[in-house]
Amino acid sequence: MKPRLKVVKIGGNIIENEEELSHFLTDFTKLEGPKILVHGGGKAASKLSEKMGITPNMVNGRRITDADALEVIIMTYAGKINKNIVSLLQKNKTDAIGLSGADGGIIKAVKRPVRKIDYGFVGDIQSVNGDRLNEFIASGLIPIICPISMTEEGQLLNTNADTIASEVAAAMQAFYETQLVYIFEKKGVLRSIDDEDSVIEHIDGDSYFKLLEEGIIADGMLPKLKNSFDALKKNVSKVLIGNSTLITTKQDKHTTITYQNAE
Amino acid sequence: MKPRLKVVKIGGNIIENEEELSHFLTDFTKLEGPKILVHGGGKAASKLSEKMGITPNMVNGRRITDADALEVIIMTYAGKINKNIVSLLQKNKTDAIGLSGADGGIIKAVKRPVRKIDYGFVGDIQSVNGDRLNEFIASGLIPIICPISMTEEGQLLNTNADTIASEVAAAMQAFYETQLVYIFEKKGVLRSIDDEDSVIEHIDGDSYFKLLEEGIIADGMLPKLKNSFDALKKNVSKVLIGNSTLITTKQDKHTTITYQNAE
Repeated sequence: MKPRLKVVKIGGNIIENEEELSHFLTDFTKLEGPKILVHGGGKAASKLSEKMGITPNMVNGRRITDADALEVIIMTYAGKINKNIVSLLQKNKTDAIGLSGADGGIIKAVKRPVRKIDYGFVGDIQSVNGDRLNEFIASGLIPIICPISMTEEGQLLNTNADTIASEVAAAMQAFYETQLVYIFEKKGVLRSIDDEDSVIEHIDGDSYFKLLEEGIIADGMLPKLKNSFDALKKNVSKVLIGNSTLITTKQDKHTTITYQNAE
Repeated sequence: MKPRLKVVKIGGNIIENEEELSHFLTDFTKLEGPKILVHGGGKAASKLSEKMGITPNMVNGRRITDADALEVIIMTYAGKINKNIVSLLQKNKTDAIGLSGADGGIIKAVKRPVRKIDYGFVGDIQSVNGDRLNEFIASGLIPIICPISMTEEGQLLNTNADTIASEVAAAMQAFYETQLVYIFEKKGVLRSIDDEDSVIEHIDGDSYFKLLEEGIIADGMLPKLKNSFDALKKNVSKVLIGNSTLITTKQDKHTTITYQNAE
């Protein structure tokens, strides 16, 4: 049997709150077994752009990653946020190593093709170098990955952190029984968006389509669930979605997603 | 006999010129054998501070790294500059990995003690994790190190890049016959500051003291030579100081520093 590995993804709700981040990283340090952390960007890039007097480039209400925005994203994601997390973990004696997709060529991507909208310097992932990540883990390092990928031609690209976590989990499945853990501000996938206690505790391939048809999975949850099933299709064993208690022994109610009915 | 390793340090004159940087990195890619690149920060941090409306904190004409300045330094050194260099090398098929002193805990430092001046978040290096760097090199990675170190308590610190290069070279001496290569805008240590052709081609411990007494090594060259001899004292085999031709086969006249008279 393969050893178990957890790929944990955190977003803005934790990153932007100093106290919550510190608390989360203490729990992450205690989490046993091989692990990888993927972090999002949160609002830090927008805040820095504002300070620098850079106006966001918006098309049809969507933010475009132009050259200026990309520079700010690299500075905040690979610089500020990544090194903050790495140093806090090192303080906890967790031997973290911060990585962008460029470092060791771990995440290769293509620039998203222009269709209705030109998103600019945004990456669609082609491959994750699981061998390299496994080498780091085998030598005792904990990879901390920021949401930046790179083309074969060395162009850095802004890349969705949920998708990075999904693809990393899928790549690591060659070496480990891999679990993907999405941590966000809610307890899980909610049946009723306004009711925090309406957590759907288990989703599989069949119930997923029903939930889609009923319109219960919509808006922001659509890409998260798509990323979850992309990982499951690539043999990730299960996906957990919930709040930060997910990496502790006292888990709140949360959503577990498996490909096939677990019953 | 140990294999040979080169630790190459570049500063602002190359980093700030897109064309020169690209040219240098092409040469660096061609440089045979194990190698490590250490880069300085140049003026990027000052420029970003200006854009953000942060006024530099100056005491007695010296810039102080306060909390705001440190944040800008982390973003520009570990983010912008480091990932730019890594992605350009990856484009050249050089498997570069960007590292701050926090990543893998490779550079431990203490906050510089307050004496006449409180320099703020500035690091004095305590140790370099040569084992970890050697692991990366042994697995085919080329470490690209930015001038940030970290305390045992996880505090990131702004750190002199020349000193990082010197300490890294010294630490790698356990595994390699190590050479330290300082690349800057001049051909080498000049006997007469205004005469580019007055390069002193060889300096050893004896001639170093004579040059100090004569006042020929002064100002900006003083710390560079101190870092050079610190490395030599720790058994680095030689230090080369000169322009970017130093890593090519067509070297301009330059300065070679050895601990003992090479004759």
